[in-house]
Amino acid sequence: MNIQSKTNGTVDMRDMAQAIRFLSMDAIVRAQDGHPGTPLGGADIATALFTRHLKFDAAAPEWPDRDRFVHSAGHGSMLLYSLLHLCGYEEMGIDEIRNFRVLGSNTAGHPEYHPSAGIETTTGPLGQGIANAVGMAVAERILNHRFGDDIVDHYTYAYTGDGCLMEGIAAEVIAIAGHLKLGKLVFLWDDNRMTDDGPTDQAVSEDQVVRFENNGWHVQSVDGHDPEAVAAAIAAAKQDDRPSMIACRTFIGYGVPRIQNDRAAHGGKITTEDTDAARENLGWTHAPFELPGDLAQAWHNAGARGASEREAWQARLDALPAADRAEFDRLMRGELPEGWEQVILDAKRRYTESDEAKPGIRASGEMLSALADVIPELISGAPDLEAATQHKRQMRPFTRDDRGGRYIHYGVREHAMGAMMNGMTVHGGIRSVGTTFLVFSDYMRHTLRVAALMRVPGVFVFSHDSIGIGKNGPTHQPVEYLASLRAIPNMWVLRPADAVEMAEAWDLAMRRSDGPVSIICSRQPLDPVRRTQEDENLSARGGYVLAEAEGGARRATLLATGSEVSVALAARDLLQAQRVPTAVVSMPSWELFEAQDAAYRREVLGDGTVRVGVEAAVRLGWDRYVGMEGGFVGMSGFGASGDVADLYRHFGITAERVAEEVTARL
Amino acid sequence: MNIQSKTNGTVDMRDMAQAIRFLSMDAIVRAQDGHPGTPLGGADIATALFTRHLKFDAAAPEWPDRDRFVHSAGHGSMLLYSLLHLCGYEEMGIDEIRNFRVLGSNTAGHPEYHPSAGIETTTGPLGQGIANAVGMAVAERILNHRFGDDIVDHYTYAYTGDGCLMEGIAAEVIAIAGHLKLGKLVFLWDDNRMTDDGPTDQAVSEDQVVRFENNGWHVQSVDGHDPEAVAAAIAAAKQDDRPSMIACRTFIGYGVPRIQNDRAAHGGKITTEDTDAARENLGWTHAPFELPGDLAQAWHNAGARGASEREAWQARLDALPAADRAEFDRLMRGELPEGWEQVILDAKRRYTESDEAKPGIRASGEMLSALADVIPELISGAPDLEAATQHKRQMRPFTRDDRGGRYIHYGVREHAMGAMMNGMTVHGGIRSVGTTFLVFSDYMRHTLRVAALMRVPGVFVFSHDSIGIGKNGPTHQPVEYLASLRAIPNMWVLRPADAVEMAEAWDLAMRRSDGPVSIICSRQPLDPVRRTQEDENLSARGGYVLAEAEGGARRATLLATGSEVSVALAARDLLQAQRVPTAVVSMPSWELFEAQDAAYRREVLGDGTVRVGVEAAVRLGWDRYVGMEGGFVGMSGFGASGDVADLYRHFGITAERVAEEVTARL
Repeated sequence: MNIQSKTNGTVDMRDMAQAIRFLSMDAIVRAQDGHPGTPLGGADIATALFTRHLKFDAAAPEWPDRDRFVHSAGHGSMLLYSLLHLCGYEEMGIDEIRNFRVLGSNTAGHPEYHPSAGIETTTGPLGQGIANAVGMAVAERILNHRFGDDIVDHYTYAYTGDGCLMEGIAAEVIAIAGHLKLGKLVFLWDDNRMTDDGPTDQAVSEDQVVRFENNGWHVQSVDGHDPEAVAAAIAAAKQDDRPSMIACRTFIGYGVPRIQNDRAAHGGKITTEDTDAARENLGWTHAPFELPGDLAQAWHNAGARGASEREAWQARLDALPAADRAEFDRLMRGELPEGWEQVILDAKRRYTESDEAKPGIRASGEMLSALADVIPELISGAPDLEAATQHKRQMRPFTRDDRGGRYIHYGVREHAMGAMMNGMTVHGGIRSVGTTFLVFSDYMRHTLRVAALMRVPGVFVFSHDSIGIGKNGPTHQPVEYLASLRAIPNMWVLRPADAVEMAEAWDLAMRRSDGPVSIICSRQPLDPVRRTQEDENLSARGGYVLAEAEGGARRATLLATGSEVSVALAARDLLQAQRVPTAVVSMPSWELFEAQDAAYRREVLGDGTVRVGVEAAVRLGWDRYVGMEGGFVGMSGFGASGDVADLYRHFGITAERVAEEVTARL
Repeated sequence: MNIQSKTNGTVDMRDMAQAIRFLSMDAIVRAQDGHPGTPLGGADIATALFTRHLKFDAAAPEWPDRDRFVHSAGHGSMLLYSLLHLCGYEEMGIDEIRNFRVLGSNTAGHPEYHPSAGIETTTGPLGQGIANAVGMAVAERILNHRFGDDIVDHYTYAYTGDGCLMEGIAAEVIAIAGHLKLGKLVFLWDDNRMTDDGPTDQAVSEDQVVRFENNGWHVQSVDGHDPEAVAAAIAAAKQDDRPSMIACRTFIGYGVPRIQNDRAAHGGKITTEDTDAARENLGWTHAPFELPGDLAQAWHNAGARGASEREAWQARLDALPAADRAEFDRLMRGELPEGWEQVILDAKRRYTESDEAKPGIRASGEMLSALADVIPELISGAPDLEAATQHKRQMRPFTRDDRGGRYIHYGVREHAMGAMMNGMTVHGGIRSVGTTFLVFSDYMRHTLRVAALMRVPGVFVFSHDSIGIGKNGPTHQPVEYLASLRAIPNMWVLRPADAVEMAEAWDLAMRRSDGPVSIICSRQPLDPVRRTQEDENLSARGGYVLAEAEGGARRATLLATGSEVSVALAARDLLQAQRVPTAVVSMPSWELFEAQDAAYRREVLGDGTVRVGVEAAVRLGWDRYVGMEGGFVGMSGFGASGDVADLYRHFGITAERVAEEVTARL
């Protein structure tokens, strides 16, 4: 294809798009790394959005009512960085562009959540970005319902390639967005028909237009290299009350003769020879990283375009009744409402006084219900496991007709839930809770990683946590999941031993602001193990002595979590009866325990005593606490289908076995 | 809805379906657990399939050319167990039915792979079954291409509920099946419009008919309680050269007044009151677990219906030229062709003699290519990462027009790949290899679990295994994945240190028949560390002394895997120079190391020496080998975007740091 370049003096969107192309190429060549195809191919689309439609103010990146822009095809990150730089984001100065992919820069290989620099979410793992965008669009409608059009009324745009649309998560969120009729959501599909492996028709036969329409979307198809056409389509999309998808036909690597419309454009290296050829081809005469004044000004104007709108918004916010204003500010700061802690304390008192053996998941559901009463920003969902988890309760659903609902019917779509939760979280103003069986956390696992990487909160409730589910069998019995979740950096894995610890887990989960929390719940009843009333959150130390040794110096230390704490307590009874002074340590969170000082950890772990870990899961990781010579009573393989008591006996997770492991080591 | 029951003496499909319903209910009531909705709702569909179409012989469950039936909605397992029992599968006798969900029975809560009992694959985690079925249909076409219609020519049927279709993996495999035009694949959709949470319209707006058609499927809609209509639709589906979906409108919990067409039918408890009411409602007069003779005979006839066809097939097989016959038998036994080991030995010799620092993924690609030349059943795929992983090479693609291809263009659909690989594996006759980046293993993680649980092979190649990928940044740098894969029971995680160990890893992967293997590959070049030629596979011991201490008794032991083995070797040089006799242990597989005897392990680990682990990943699990007092040099959080050398320095994974960890402990 021969490409026409503009050479007259006026600046139009095509010129502005060229600025993106060359800035991106210069950065990629300098970094000797990066994916050129997207910034070259998508420059016209992005220009149309950023100069005509996107509501933002580069001087105030975190303006709460800004439109959100998600660069879902994260590998093409230079498209985003170029846009942010050209629009004048302070934290995206030219040095950042020059240091693309250099350690310590704001311009990582793939965009990393950094709202003050204009990066709304972390993208790169395909499909995550578009799913985050659907979550953002939900958050917007929820807050709009509470505060009205004057305060919250913005669009969410996601730029997507073919890869995002092929991932399974895409189908999940396209279905949900259409079903919920999220009219302020717009997907811009960079329809370049080329992936790293070659033409998309190697792997795709589906008609995307039909696909989106069949999911209740408004769909348009335009020439993605005609910014006016793209701008007009966005205008039409905004008018429609359905979510919109705009198929923008483009050429990957547009403008660089060697790679244009070639698979090499996706992630292949480009050199100064390529940029020279592109300069020739596109009529660009400027040196690397240089921009003529009129183009720079035009981009700067685009970045400042929203200033007056933002000021008007600020005036409306200032004019709110004081209580509303305070509430909005509280939500934007991510702070919890005053008095919420009382819910925790009340629950702890209630649970301490009760003798009821309560399933972990039921206690968790009670905490969610009680907290939801006082934390209006708490939004919940449990993909088709509402009955099994009892995590819906009094909440009415968020639907296309009722934006005041606070329970999301995700359908059987765990991956969508996780990514939408992340989207709601980074949008701001929402505390998101998602509940499913622990085995299905695999389906949404990558969303947990991204939350941890972004250092944002999120409460993930995982139930049916062991062979304790019984007859549903090994497909539904998680034996490796505690280890695999503990492996995720910055994830807190909390496995409460009883309802009191469950209340403490929710306390911790609500307080956490710099990373996600997984609350691991049993299906089976948990014997109450915490019998003394105390306001202090003992679980906050990660591990603590639940029952100290009696009748002499401690000789054995039993370390356990969740439902196995009561097994350890029973083993302690056996050992004490044998005159072996034995302590039981409950370890609801390894991560929090690791954060304690060495002296505390040594004291709790009982230096020099015989140590045995008890957990109905694989041993991986336990050696850190029991030592190479310590014992472990748990699972060494997958579970089985059968009665719960039969299974615990069959797999040898019994008090007798724990006691034997101790005595064999005395 | 009032339900008509047949009361005249003849046996038709409706009567036969009633037998499924009552047998299933009786078993569920007896187990006091189980999901009644599916066997009640799907009985007519299943009867039509099993009595009119499915090609099988209950007396020979593993007949290679049988049609495959996948019960994807695995929670409704009693539907499958009832069918198998009624048809006369020896391993599914009445005691198995009576012991539904009892420990040790063949009738686990969810179906578990057990081909001699008629269970073709493990299902329950939604979406896995239909995806397995797509893999089976691919396997069938590949083997049909090799052996012709006389020997391999069968259909694959998958019974799916709404849940399977909502999962993202469904979109991935529906797209692939349509794209590949797998005409011998039939989905029977139990369209009951009800899930555990309630009516599907709470979460689904998409028209499934349009959806499948848009993916190139042949689609029909029938009354799922009219077995004749279902049978006719199956006949039409078989005639069409596209994959077929038959939407069978049903009522969940059909026949039990309290739960019919109610969410309670999905997984709720039923009692003898319910079965009494159903007996009344459906006119069933027989005692629990009892069946009138004519119905029993009719079902037995259905189970024996395929005997003559199987005998004819056997005659055709026997008439094959001896070499073809031997080859077919070899494939069915899952044995590798003679002489394949020479490929490994040759590669080891070549790599040992070379000084080239070769990226792990390139060495793996070379092994795949060399093995593919001698192992014709080896089928490969690398979802849109063909260039980055070089795991396609000489193979031509398997397409709708060329069933002789051996490379599958999965598109950007990792989850589909994993589940299709499992489907190909349990089909038999295929050795399946799937390659992607290690971070994307999260997207297909559950398929690894299912392979491990089924104890079936599968070679999963995961590349770009650490911060060693450099500039693509933390979204693409797996730090927690070695731990999370090692947590899966029965998974071998192999992380070769150089090309020689890579050849050994492939040797192990090819030999393994009772579980999956993950081969973990670096993107960056690996210095050759194995410099002496030996035919023995040292990696088979999981860990071995690569470089023994010199100049005295060993005082320090450095344990490392993959790219960090060369860091450990450099640290050893520093320590030896300080007169600290230091050994380096390469530990390509913890699982294989654990299988060695205690004496060997003690010797390798160097009892009493200072131990330091080195791995560019999180510490979780390493304490087992280095002990509580040992050192670890690796990652404690996520990575960063930057130059590889900068990153290793930044995160302190250096020879100097390893040496310091040792000297601090001497």
